[in-house]
This record gives sequence, structure tokens and C-alpha cells, in this order.
Amino acid sequence: MATIPTFEPEHPGYHDAVTESFARQGLMRAFGVELIRVEPGLCELRVPFSERLAQQHGYFHGAIVGAVLDSAGGYAALSLQPPGSEVLTTEFKLNFLEPADGEDLIARGTVLKAGSRVIVTESKAYCLKAGVASLVAVMLQSVVPVRAK
Amino acid sequence: MATIPTFEPEHPGYHDAVTESFARQGLMRAFGVELIRVEPGLCELRVPFSERLAQQHGYFHGAIVGAVLDSAGGYAALSLQPPGSEVLTTEFKLNFLEPADGEDLIARGTVLKAGSRVIVTESKAYCLKAGVASLVAVMLQSVVPVRAK
Amino acid sequence: MATIPTFEPEHPGYHDAVTESFARQGLMRAFGVELIRVEPGLCELRVPFSERLAQQHGYFHGAIVGAVLDSAGGYAALSLQPPGSEVLTTEFKLNFLEPADGEDLIARGTVLKAGSRVIVTESKAYCLKAGVASLVAVMLQSVVPVRAK
Amino acid sequence: MATIPTFEPEHPGYHDAVTESFARQGLMRAFGVELIRVEPGLCELRVPFSERLAQQHGYFHGAIVGAVLDSAGGYAALSLQPPGSEVLTTEFKLNFLEPADGEDLIARGTVLKAGSRVIVTESKAYCLKAGVASLVAVMLQSVVPVRAK
Repeated sequence: MATIPTFEPEHPGYHDAVTESFARQGLMRAFGVELIRVEPGLCELRVPFSERLAQQHGYFHGAIVGAVLDSAGGYAALSLQPPGSEVLTTEFKLNFLEPADGEDLIARGTVLKAGSRVIVTESKAYCLKAGVASLVAVMLQSVVPVRAK
Repeated sequence: MATIPTFEPEHPGYHDAVTESFARQGLMRAFGVELIRVEPGLCELRVPFSERLAQQHGYFHGAIVGAVLDSAGGYAALSLQPPGSEVLTTEFKLNFLEPADGEDLIARGTVLKAGSRVIVTESKAYCLKAGVASLVAVMLQSVVPVRAK
Repeated sequence: MATIPTFEPEHPGYHDAVTESFARQGLMRAFGVELIRVEPGLCELRVPFSERLAQQHGYFHGAIVGAVLDSAGGYAALSLQPPGSEVLTTEFKLNFLEPADGEDLIARGTVLKAGSRVIVTESKAYCLKAGVASLVAVMLQSVVPVRAK
Repeated sequence: MATIPTFEPEHPGYHDAVTESFARQGLMRAFGVELIRVEPGLCELRVPFSERLAQQHGYFHGAIVGAVLDSAGGYAALSLQPPGSEVLTTEFKLNFLEPADGEDLIARGTVLKAGSRVIVTESKAYCLKAGVASLVAVMLQSVVPVRAK
């Protein structure tokens, strides 16, 4: 029952489409976010820790965790769209579970439902500290596909 | 990284505690909901389809799906509490993925984070139709523990 | 800045459309829910308290609060749709603020954004007790319009 | 019924407490966010538009909208806490209503329920463009009070 759905991409060049769209994201670049994995319905992003991403206690700021989860979910959705598509987040919900304390923040976005009108994703953020990964936040997100102009 | 946390119950009689609390839920009984599995940090509920639980197209009503997911998450949380506890839902977020069409609705609640002040759960609802399970809805929920009076 | 938007209905018979759709909702009828106000982009529902709607402490059950808020938002959205439409909830988020203790539960749904693809509503639930109203829960909801078959 | 609650601050110096905490937020400063209004249970923030806050179409990036709404809600909550307190966001839900297109982004956070364990806030983001304000996003948020170290 807990089978993870597997998706067939509609766009044979989905990997390049995601990579190119990600490269245009100025804010992701400003935060030092790297795209580390793209598969049909899945996207992983990594953010190395730096002081300017921290809140007052030296952890990743919640705004960074939220932004990276939102992007991971959005690119997981984009990987399943036909050529010439973009996606737009209409809403998300985010629970913070632990302080985001670590050398790296990893966000993994996965598609739960690839509807033609609404795509629902689930994304999880992990912190890596001294080789140990902890789940620090979880997001449910809705995105809508739009044809790029 | 996607390791599922395992939890140690604080209450050796956690199974009975959940079963007894569930038995007092008048609304769950009215809906015909059955408690089918309890483990530390996990709860599964099953609802056989009946006309009075349907919306106009003959699927399980969204209100039923929401109520059963909320209960599954709440009992997953309760399974980790000390004797004499109750839990109270403070908020949840629910995405409907597919029409809840089937002979049985199964809700599986799991604890993501068992904090002392806030417990965060993730619950998934599946419909079984002719032996095939489909993921129909997903919930993120926060509950707070309270000492029962 | 806090101006409340006013909406023009697309359907001159919006009031009847909402009333007729509501009358077909078996679960709302089973819960004793009454439709008390419909305006363009707004819907109010009332539920008189009864034992079978209560949780173990004698308050309205959270599942009832959620179901009634979901309906109030959905009908607020439907009031702005063209003839022959239905609406489908794709997701909602619900915060419980106070125990739902009172003789009547009132849910007021209002449209925040009437998009062509996604309609976003905000709904608030109040309990009336000895003439005093308390805000007991709040919901944000997304619905999509569908053409009725 | 739609009465807006008024709150009594527990801390006579609540205005300074919020101002000082805000001044320590490096990320808010990096984004050019200004604190423009603090009252018991209410906080307003303003962000003048700049290119580095934009997404690819020249609007405020969703991550900025989310971060500023989260802060506005958090400071609305902090304004009601006793001296020596901090607040921690445990979860939020965000709906994007319109492109965040304008010269200024204003986020207004208000407390819906000031519980001793969980504080629930509602925040709205407006864009000002040529003197006209549009509601662009809405958030429901839960925060927990913590004693500052």
C-alpha cells in the first residue's frame, strides 16, 4: 500500500529543462543552493551552511528551509511537464521539526499526484551534521503548470 | 537519509490505551471506523464504504476522509505518550489527491516528530478497489499532549 | 489596505444554485447543518448542537467543525461560478483555536481570490454560548471549479 | 461576530522588545525589510522592491513573501509575551493569491489566539503599485513561546 509511484516523464529532455530553469533562479544562486539530483517526479537540492543563511542561534534560517523545500517540490513537479512548461506554487504548508543544524541542508521533493490542473508534492528537508542526517522539516505543496512565454 | 524513525513507547500498555480511547469515540463508531493496527508511533484505521458516508458521486465524502486521517494521526501520537495522556489536534493540512472511490478507506498515521510540546504526524489515506490501493489524500498534523483528567 | 473585496456573481441565480447544491448534501443534512446566508463570495452555515456531534468533553467534534468550514468555503466559491458549475476542494488547512463549546456553531466562508483555475477561501468558525460568540477555528482552502455533468 | 480581539500586552516594553529582536535578524536586514508598526498582537513589515528580491518575471520572489509573512506573524505573537521571551515558528501555511508585483510589499501579522502553549497568527501580504494595494498572499501560522537564554 505504501508503494511509491513511479512517473514517466512527458519531456525526454526533462533533466535539462529542470537544470536550465534552476540556473535562472537568482535567489537560489544567492543562497548557494545546488541542484544535486533530478529524476521523473523527484528533485534534490543541497545548501552548504554559511553565516548569511543563519538565524540568531547559528542554524539555517527557517526562510531558507522554506525556500529550498518550495523549490525542490516545484522542480519535482516541473520534471513531469511537457516541453516549454513552467510551474507556479499556489500554496504550501510547512512543519518545522528540529533546529536546522548542520553543515549541509538537503531538500528532497517528490510528486504525490501529477494532475493536469494541480500537482501535489511532498518535500522533506534533512540536515547533515558529522555524517548523521536528521529530518528537520516537511512540506506539502500545490503547484499549477503554466505554458512558458 | 529517508530512514523511518522508530519509537520506543513510554507506556508499556500503549496498545490498550489507544484501543480504549478509540472505543470512546462516538463519531468514529457512527462512521463505522475500525482500528486495525497500533504500533509505537503508528496507527491504521479502516472504514468500509456505506451510502451514508458518500458524497453526491458515490465516493467517500471528504469530511470522512479528513476525520479518519485526523484520528489516525492523533492515535499514532497517543501511542507514544505516558499513561493517563490524551492528545488534542491543534491544526492540520489536508490535500485531496484522487476521488476516494473504493470498498474500503484505510488511513495510516505516522509520527514524524514526537516533541514534548508539539507532536507532528503525517497520515495517508488509501482507497481499496477490487484489490488495488490508491493514495487518495495526505495530511500533516500537529497535536499537543494533555494529561487526562 | 484591509479592504474586503466585493464580487460580482457570474450567475444571476447564484443564490438558488447554492441552495440546491446544499440541499443535495446528505452528510450536511445528517449533521443538521442549515444554510443561513449566501452572498456573492460569502456563505454562512449554522449547526445546532446535539449529542451525536460531540466529542468526549461535550464540545462540537473537530471533524464537524472541519466539515462545516470546508462546506462554507466551498459554497462561498460556488456562489461566484457560472451556471452549471460545481466546485471541488483540493486542499485545506485548519487551525483549532478554542474548544467548540456552545449551542450553535456558525461557519462563515469568504472568497479571498476567485481565480479561473483555483479559488482561495478563508473561513472562520464561531461558537455561540449564552449570546456570546467566540472564534473557535479558522481555515484556508483551495477549490477548483468543475463543470457539472 | 467578526469582532477583532484586542490584546493587553504582558510586557509594558513590548514595542522595544520587538524592535530589538527585529534588529538582530540578519536575513531581514539583508532583504531590506523595515518594521513599520507594532501594537499588541499586531506587526507590520515593509519591503521596498529591489532586483535581488525578484523572481524571473520581476515580481517579489515567493520566498521573500513567505519569509516576511512568517516574520510579521512571529513578531505579532512576540508582542504579547512577557519580558525575556522569544517565539519559534512550528508551522505555517501560505496561499499565493496574485503575483507580488509592486514597489512595496507590506506584511501585516495579527494574533488570532494567544494560547500559553501555541499562538496562532494570521498574516496578509499586500503589494502597493502606483498607490493601489492588492492582497497577494495569506498565511496561517503556529508559534510557540520560549524563554530566551
